[in-house]
Amino acid sequence: MSNQNMFVKIAIDNWQSQVNAFNSMLDKLSDEQLLEEIAPSKNRGIYLLGHLIAVHDRMLPLLRFEDAKYPGLKPLFIDAPDKTIQDIPATSQLRAQWKEVNEKLSAHYKTLSPDQWLERHASVSPEDFEKEPNRNRLNVLVGRTNHLSYHGGQLALLVKKN
Amino acid sequence: MSNQNMFVKIAIDNWQSQVNAFNSMLDKLSDEQLLEEIAPSKNRGIYLLGHLIAVHDRMLPLLRFEDAKYPGLKPLFIDAPDKTIQDIPATSQLRAQWKEVNEKLSAHYKTLSPDQWLERHASVSPEDFEKEPNRNRLNVLVGRTNHLSYHGGQLALLVKKN
Repeated sequence: MSNQNMFVKIAIDNWQSQVNAFNSMLDKLSDEQLLEEIAPSKNRGIYLLGHLIAVHDRMLPLLRFEDAKYPGLKPLFIDAPDKTIQDIPATSQLRAQWKEVNEKLSAHYKTLSPDQWLERHASVSPEDFEKEPNRNRLNVLVGRTNHLSYHGGQLALLVKKN
Repeated sequence: MSNQNMFVKIAIDNWQSQVNAFNSMLDKLSDEQLLEEIAPSKNRGIYLLGHLIAVHDRMLPLLRFEDAKYPGLKPLFIDAPDKTIQDIPATSQLRAQWKEVNEKLSAHYKTLSPDQWLERHASVSPEDFEKEPNRNRLNVLVGRTNHLSYHGGQLALLVKKN
């Protein structure tokens, strides 16, 4: 394996490992438990789940793969704080969307060469990208992996120790 | 900048950005606030800080830079759960050690070439590394960045909104 392929492999493997860890926590949490707050007056588990789906869904266009599949989640789980909107999707539906969006991302990841990972992401113009070539797809992947870990550490607070 | 240097830059920049975000939270938290639990019956902020110093300190030998500077923190903040050992260092001391250990790491990061980032870390033997070349320094850096984000998401629960 070339050095460049190894760099990409490490980034993708670390993403997948955080997705797997989050999935493992979700499997341990009932729909009722996901309605609990991670700490008094803080976000509920369900909000973290919706927030992560919305953010990952928006990676589809940000990485220039395809349109967002569930743009309706952004107003509910990115623009609005938790507990300000009553009418959110059923937990079973969110669980399915979470799985689907991550599977779409993983399938796209496999199609990119190392050079393509270093191409610009969709939020930077070609002109600005010339000046700041670090605003590329790989940077989005690594940053979003950290974002997932951040909220994973919060969801972990709902998982009961045996 | 070569592709390989760009891959390394992204990994290091993301590490530094997580360290900066954690430092910014620490600056907002008094020593008294760090003694609070992040959620009822969960770890205290001070434990997360000690835990992260201990883990980052151990990256010094793991990345084959130098010996751990504060090996005495491992029994307190890795081996023992929070609130089982009364005699832990003063918060002011931990704040200083945190800064020092991260500065040491950052200084070492700058000395490695992309090829050196793909060399084995200290917990894998040369024989095993031949079979699993992804067990390299860069993988440690990316994994530990996620670990920091994970606990950063937890410490954030102690920071009061204005």
